[in-house]
Amino acid sequence: MRGAVLYAPGDVRVEDRPDAAIIKPTDAIIRLSATCICGSDLWPYRGVEKLDGPAVMGHEYVGVVEEVGSEATTVKPGQFVVGSFVASDGICEICRSGYPSSCVHRVFMNEVGTQSERARIPHADGTLVATPGMPGAELIPSLLAASDVLGTGWFGAVAAQAGPGKTVAVVGDGAVGLMAVLAARQLGAERIIAMSRHETRQKLAREFGATDIVTERGNDGVAQVKELTNGLGAHSVVEAVGTQESMRQAIGSARPGGHVGYVGVNHDVALSGEELFFAQVSLLGGPAPVRRFLPQLIELIWERKIDPGKVFDLTLPLDRAAEGYQAMDERRAIKVLLQP
Amino acid sequence: MRGAVLYAPGDVRVEDRPDAAIIKPTDAIIRLSATCICGSDLWPYRGVEKLDGPAVMGHEYVGVVEEVGSEATTVKPGQFVVGSFVASDGICEICRSGYPSSCVHRVFMNEVGTQSERARIPHADGTLVATPGMPGAELIPSLLAASDVLGTGWFGAVAAQAGPGKTVAVVGDGAVGLMAVLAARQLGAERIIAMSRHETRQKLAREFGATDIVTERGNDGVAQVKELTNGLGAHSVVEAVGTQESMRQAIGSARPGGHVGYVGVNHDVALSGEELFFAQVSLLGGPAPVRRFLPQLIELIWERKIDPGKVFDLTLPLDRAAEGYQAMDERRAIKVLLQP
Repeated sequence: MRGAVLYAPGDVRVEDRPDAAIIKPTDAIIRLSATCICGSDLWPYRGVEKLDGPAVMGHEYVGVVEEVGSEATTVKPGQFVVGSFVASDGICEICRSGYPSSCVHRVFMNEVGTQSERARIPHADGTLVATPGMPGAELIPSLLAASDVLGTGWFGAVAAQAGPGKTVAVVGDGAVGLMAVLAARQLGAERIIAMSRHETRQKLAREFGATDIVTERGNDGVAQVKELTNGLGAHSVVEAVGTQESMRQAIGSARPGGHVGYVGVNHDVALSGEELFFAQVSLLGGPAPVRRFLPQLIELIWERKIDPGKVFDLTLPLDRAAEGYQAMDERRAIKVLLQP
Repeated sequence: MRGAVLYAPGDVRVEDRPDAAIIKPTDAIIRLSATCICGSDLWPYRGVEKLDGPAVMGHEYVGVVEEVGSEATTVKPGQFVVGSFVASDGICEICRSGYPSSCVHRVFMNEVGTQSERARIPHADGTLVATPGMPGAELIPSLLAASDVLGTGWFGAVAAQAGPGKTVAVVGDGAVGLMAVLAARQLGAERIIAMSRHETRQKLAREFGATDIVTERGNDGVAQVKELTNGLGAHSVVEAVGTQESMRQAIGSARPGGHVGYVGVNHDVALSGEELFFAQVSLLGGPAPVRRFLPQLIELIWERKIDPGKVFDLTLPLDRAAEGYQAMDERRAIKVLLQP
C-alpha cells in the first residue's frame, strides 16, 4: 500500500509500504477515506524532534472497517469509523476516568502512520466510534477533523472550562486554535478572543465564533486581553502552540482563579514555578482525550450543527503529501487533507 | 508596642515598634490573642528571600477588635476575629469568584507584620470573620491555625480535589502538609498517603487521618506511591514544600487526569512543559484563598470536630520569638505559637 515516510527534515516521500495487517486479536484494519497533516507532524519535519531513521507519518484517520481481529467484537467490517490519534483500550481505570489518551495500554497512532491507504487500529473496540451510517463526501472533512484537530481544540476549551458567562482567549491561530474557538462557542462562552495576526485566519476565527481579535503577542498580547477584560484577564485560556512564549502568554492572559487548557505539544518549555504560583491559574493539558468527546462531536457533525471541516484549506492526493507538508510549513495552508 | 523585626538572615529581634493605628477608613485594629511563625517566614530568615533592610515579620493572627475605621461596618470592637494572611476587600470580581488571596486590592499581611501585640488589618469587613463568641483559651491555637496553615493545607486539598473515593498523597510533612492531611480526611478521602521521614511527624499525620506513610523521596517516593495505587498514581496530590524536587515528586505521584494542589511557595522552580504535558495532571496553586474557607473552618473548630491546634508543638512568649525561629529552622519544632 502507499504511505508517507519522513526520511529527514523536509524530506517526506509517499512510497510502497508493507500492507496493514492484523497483529493482535484486538486490532482492526481500516481503508482510509481521508487522512491529513497535523501541526505536530511539523515538529519532526522541521527537525525540532529528532528522527531515529525513516519514520512513518500521520495519526489522523477516518475510513471503512475492512477486517477485525478475533477479539474485536463491537466494531464490524463495513462500518464507517472515526478514531482518536491515540488508540486506547477503553476499559482501564484511566480510560474510564475520561483520559483515554493516557490509557495504560495506549498506542500513539503516529507509530502506525495513518498517512496511508490502509491502517491497523489497535484496541479497535476501545478506539473506534462508528458513524450512524455511511457519510456523504461533504461530511468526510469534518469527521476527519474530529480525529484530532477538533477533538484537541475541544479538549483545550473543556480544560480551560469554557462555558456560559465566560470570556475565553485562544492563543494560536493554527487549526487547533481555530477549533478551540469553535468549541468555546459550542460550549456557550460569552466572549471569545482569538489571538491572531493573519487576516485569513482571523476571518475563519470569526466564522467559528470569535467575538474579538487580538493581534499583539507576548506581553503586549497579555495587556490587550487585560484591557478587554476589565484589567482582570480571561476566565479561560486555550494554549494551542506549545512554545515558551505562547505558554507564558496563555498563563499571563488568565485571571486569578481562571483556567488554562494547553494542547500545543510543549517543546523546550520551562515554566517558572513562582510565576505560576502567583498567577493562581489552573493548568491542564496534554495529549487530548479525544475519544471521550467523539460520540458528541460525531453527533454535532452528523446533524450539521458544526462544520469543522472548513479548517482544511488545501486538499491533495496522498501521493502529493510532500506538497502539503511544504504548504503547512510555510503557513500557506492552515491544514491539509490527503485523499488516499 | 512590641513586635518582631528581621534585621538579617538569622537575626530576628522583638523590639518596640510604632503602635498600630488606623490609616484607611476600612481598617481595623486588633489586639492579638496569639500569633505564630510560618514555614514561609523561614525563607527570608534563611536568606533565600533577600531583604531590603529590616522587615516586620508575621502574617498569622487572631484577636479582639479594638477599633474600626469609619467605613468598616460589619466588624465591631469587642469581637473575636480570625483573618487570612492576605487582606482582601471581599467585593471585587476575583474575591467573589472565590480567590480573595488574589483580590485586586489585596494586602499581604507580612507587610503589616503580625508578630506583634496589636495589628492594623486592612479591608476589615472583607478580611475578618468573627467567631460565634469569645473562645476559651483551648480553642485559640486552632483558630490561629485557620488564619494560614490550616486554610492553606485545606486549599491544597481542595485544589487537589480530595474527596470521597479518592487516594490523596501529601508531599511535605511540615505544618501545612499535616493540615492538608487533616483537610483530606474532612473532605472524605478514602486513602491518605503522607510522605514523611520523621517519626514524630508521621505520628501526627496518622492522628490527622493519614492511612499510609511513604518515607522515600524523589523518584523513589513516586515509585512507592505508584506501588500503593495499582501503578497509576494518586488521584490527588498536595504539594506543601515548594522546591524543584518536591514539585516534581508531586506531579510524578499523580495519575493522568489527577490533580495537584501546590501550596508551598515556589522558589527557583522550573517545571518542564513537556513533562507536565505528558503527565496530564491538573495543577492549581498559589497563595491560599483562606478567607473563602474561614467560616467553614471556624465552625468545625468551634464544634470541636477538628483540632488543628495540635500542629503547634512549641509555645513561647512573643519576646522570645528568636528562639521560635531557631527551633523551626532546625526542625526541632513543627510550628511555634507566640503569645503577645
